[in-house]
Amino acid sequence: MQMAKVIGTVVASRKEEILEGLRFLILEPVDANTMKGCAAPVVAADAVGAGVGELVLFCSGSAARQTTLTKDRPVDAVCMAIVDQVHID
Amino acid sequence: MQMAKVIGTVVASRKEEILEGLRFLILEPVDANTMKGCAAPVVAADAVGAGVGELVLFCSGSAARQTTLTKDRPVDAVCMAIVDQVHID
Amino acid sequence: MQMAKVIGTVVASRKEEILEGLRFLILEPVDANTMKGCAAPVVAADAVGAGVGELVLFCSGSAARQTTLTKDRPVDAVCMAIVDQVHID
Amino acid sequence: MQMAKVIGTVVASRKEEILEGLRFLILEPVDANTMKGCAAPVVAADAVGAGVGELVLFCSGSAARQTTLTKDRPVDAVCMAIVDQVHID
Amino acid sequence: MQMAKVIGTVVASRKEEILEGLRFLILEPVDANTMKGCAAPVVAADAVGAGVGELVLFCSGSAARQTTLTKDRPVDAVCMAIVDQVHID
Repeated sequence: MQMAKVIGTVVASRKEEILEGLRFLILEPVDANTMKGCAAPVVAADAVGAGVGELVLFCSGSAARQTTLTKDRPVDAVCMAIVDQVHID
Repeated sequence: MQMAKVIGTVVASRKEEILEGLRFLILEPVDANTMKGCAAPVVAADAVGAGVGELVLFCSGSAARQTTLTKDRPVDAVCMAIVDQVHID
Repeated sequence: MQMAKVIGTVVASRKEEILEGLRFLILEPVDANTMKGCAAPVVAADAVGAGVGELVLFCSGSAARQTTLTKDRPVDAVCMAIVDQVHID
Repeated sequence: MQMAKVIGTVVASRKEEILEGLRFLILEPVDANTMKGCAAPVVAADAVGAGVGELVLFCSGSAARQTTLTKDRPVDAVCMAIVDQVHID
Repeated sequence: MQMAKVIGTVVASRKEEILEGLRFLILEPVDANTMKGCAAPVVAADAVGAGVGELVLFCSGSAARQTTLTKDRPVDAVCMAIVDQVHID
């Protein structure tokens, strides 16, 4: 998984029917050491109701289809948790 | 998923039989912050009838086989939505 | 797999229900030649009770769901071994 | 998928039995904009009888096992089409 | 697949039970053009009895579980062939 900050949303009305009802977030991956952006933004389905500005966890690949919302859908990234605390030693 | 701009197409007549009928797009991944190209182009199957110049979403990996068009085919990227609006905060 | 050093933990109380009970580690990938950090940290589920400061192995992708703990869960990285010895020739 | 130029072949006589009969190509990924090499070469199974010097398409990940030749084999990249035309606008 | 040189081994006694009996190699990915290291080392399960110094092929992702040795195990890279000859044109 990667930590990321929600920086926006994407709306797509013309799409594969099977994608209906999904909300797409734009996530900026964040380096846990510096808490700054560390890679180009990715687009992820929202499985937890995350809002812009929140720090979240997302997973990629086939793992992204292991939520009720994304099962069997053409989705390769899902935001599945909102981060409360980060402990770095 | 990643946002990308459709910049071209690829034609391949000699190919695995199971690929018959697919249309291959050349997509240039776009950084949601700058809306500029941010990685080398990828080739994706077209599941939504996207045209050159359009801004789209594509997904990669096994997710790319979760559309009716690409099911069980040797395809690792599919364009499955056309972007209407991008909101960055 | 990659070697990594455990550098912290992440707590997320609002999350997909299916993630309940997992502990999330922050891992800094380590180059086996130099034993120094070589990539941005990743977040992995903990399947072996690893502690901060330990050198571990983690795997990514669908392999990360091949432990009892992570089976069928939206997890794309798992820490599944603690490294005792590294031999480089 | 990615476009690539076939630049060579690899012969491996000691290998997993299940790999018997596969031909391994060395592919140099090509940037569709410049038609020049853009990443380190990868090794792919040949599913279309591609020859050195030809421009091909290959796919990676689990998609690489979706050809008759590579089904259920430990293969993470397959060359599955020979490119005839590239249109860039 | 990628070519790599075996540069060492990793021993991990505390690990997921399902990993028992696997031997872990440290592989340095090699660029087929220059035959020099081209990426940070990866750790792969050994399915062919490769020794330190040998040039091998490894595959990544779910393909790494398509050998008898690695089936259903949390392994994302496997060394499945020893390279005899490389032809570059």
